[in-house]
Amino acid sequence: MKFLTFMHDEKTYYGVKVKREDKAWVLPKLFESFSDDPDYPKSLIEGISKYNTLDFQEIVRKLVDEAERSENAEEFKVNFNDITFLAPVSPPNNVIAFGRNYKSHAEELSNNVDELYVFTKAATSLVGDNATIPNHQDITNSLDYEGELGVVIGKRGKKIHESMALDYIYGYTIINDITARDLQKEHVDAFLSKSLEGGCPMGPYIVTKDELPQPENTTIVTKVNNDIRQDGSTSEMVLKIDKMIAEISKYITLEPGDVIATGTPGGVGAGMNPPQFLQPGDTVRISINGIGTLTTHISK
Amino acid sequence: MKFLTFMHDEKTYYGVKVKREDKAWVLPKLFESFSDDPDYPKSLIEGISKYNTLDFQEIVRKLVDEAERSENAEEFKVNFNDITFLAPVSPPNNVIAFGRNYKSHAEELSNNVDELYVFTKAATSLVGDNATIPNHQDITNSLDYEGELGVVIGKRGKKIHESMALDYIYGYTIINDITARDLQKEHVDAFLSKSLEGGCPMGPYIVTKDELPQPENTTIVTKVNNDIRQDGSTSEMVLKIDKMIAEISKYITLEPGDVIATGTPGGVGAGMNPPQFLQPGDTVRISINGIGTLTTHISK
Repeated sequence: MKFLTFMHDEKTYYGVKVKREDKAWVLPKLFESFSDDPDYPKSLIEGISKYNTLDFQEIVRKLVDEAERSENAEEFKVNFNDITFLAPVSPPNNVIAFGRNYKSHAEELSNNVDELYVFTKAATSLVGDNATIPNHQDITNSLDYEGELGVVIGKRGKKIHESMALDYIYGYTIINDITARDLQKEHVDAFLSKSLEGGCPMGPYIVTKDELPQPENTTIVTKVNNDIRQDGSTSEMVLKIDKMIAEISKYITLEPGDVIATGTPGGVGAGMNPPQFLQPGDTVRISINGIGTLTTHISK
Repeated sequence: MKFLTFMHDEKTYYGVKVKREDKAWVLPKLFESFSDDPDYPKSLIEGISKYNTLDFQEIVRKLVDEAERSENAEEFKVNFNDITFLAPVSPPNNVIAFGRNYKSHAEELSNNVDELYVFTKAATSLVGDNATIPNHQDITNSLDYEGELGVVIGKRGKKIHESMALDYIYGYTIINDITARDLQKEHVDAFLSKSLEGGCPMGPYIVTKDELPQPENTTIVTKVNNDIRQDGSTSEMVLKIDKMIAEISKYITLEPGDVIATGTPGGVGAGMNPPQFLQPGDTVRISINGIGTLTTHISK
């Protein structure tokens, strides 16, 4: 299943993609019509938090089955053309991000993968698919993209053993870890340079883990306008997803909806010769096989 | 006014301290009894977000006046003995923290105030006054306290000029920036070592800015059990509050409820000779004149 969150007619909804159509089932409408639970989850994170991951998917599957069989099925759907995508979840913490997790990227910026580190991106910098974000030309001359696989946590956990990590995953998404390279160099900590307004595009969906059985063996391709810039594979990740979850949860308690950005492969603008940074009017498209494409526009 | 958030009878409420009594007015009850707005704010952050700071205080003041004049005033109050304090707000982002902002503290850890930096503490590590937090002996042998003045943001802002910074402040609180020193040294980024479960005690109240007119000229004292460890003044801060708000908002958009931890004066356990770290059963009390005392117990 592909879960999404969106605006429609100035209201926020969450939903699930209709198979083989560019439409979403509007989940609150399905709950109101086909469930007798007045206390049904009002957001994706409430659904993830309230139920066991698989139970929630089963509930949604039954609601969709009922809607499909109903005479007015189309009334429960919205066309992707009529919605504004938001980040699929609003995490309880900042996005937790791993730096230097692909050798090809660490080397292009003259870093060492042994210096792998964890930083955060402001939760309020999250935006959805197809967002236009500020070009930030007033504060940086080196705005850069980083295409990344995002992991969404499905249940509360601490000190999670790596052999159990999969159990804590809800699904996967695409993240663009937008970074102002000049500000990154000026500050000891990556937080500010990676938390500019609109600096964390995410989406378009969260694909549940059953639909992406090999998240560490899928392609990740980033295009700026029509140029292919990053053409990597998640198989290159130094720290694998299970080890990342074990590492973080050794220290902090992960909660449903927490998001982990797993690092970027080589090919960022700062690593090119000469460097090529994002310009007003550029469009960045990050595609991960099995999830889809996350598109971000830089304002003119 | 002193705003707080608490559990009572297994429900979460927000409220305002009753003057000269160790009790809180339960604000949702006041709204339900004395306001005709069914859409009244259900949490402190909703109140801060929905109204202009001063308007919200005026609304609360009127509700409290009505409650005081009513025959059943006591029904709208709860005794502090009957509540569990929570962090006074749930910020939209991780807590934004300044490191090395007091010369006395930078020097005791052999750092330089010129290397001032900004890091974050997981929002889910927030706990309230009088919390008992894990002793974390399984992952650290150097758990340490840092008493800090916390600044709570009252309205959305970006690129805030320092002369306008006060306008964006809702109030002040006390923060204990709990840090695992060994983990801090092991990691490039401070996030993990400063985000352990219960690692961000905050409270007991947010004191509105009108009641703390000189936040940069107040004493900050930290005791471990009966030992005075930190005995400083916020006047020692290198970067003042207006400059901190200007610096952060140059990059990220501040939102109502965002919390800034402004750094700690000298006297942390790691700076003592020999170092004295927090032990199971210890109690840490941080007092800021004009706000109150934040008490944290380390589990046995």
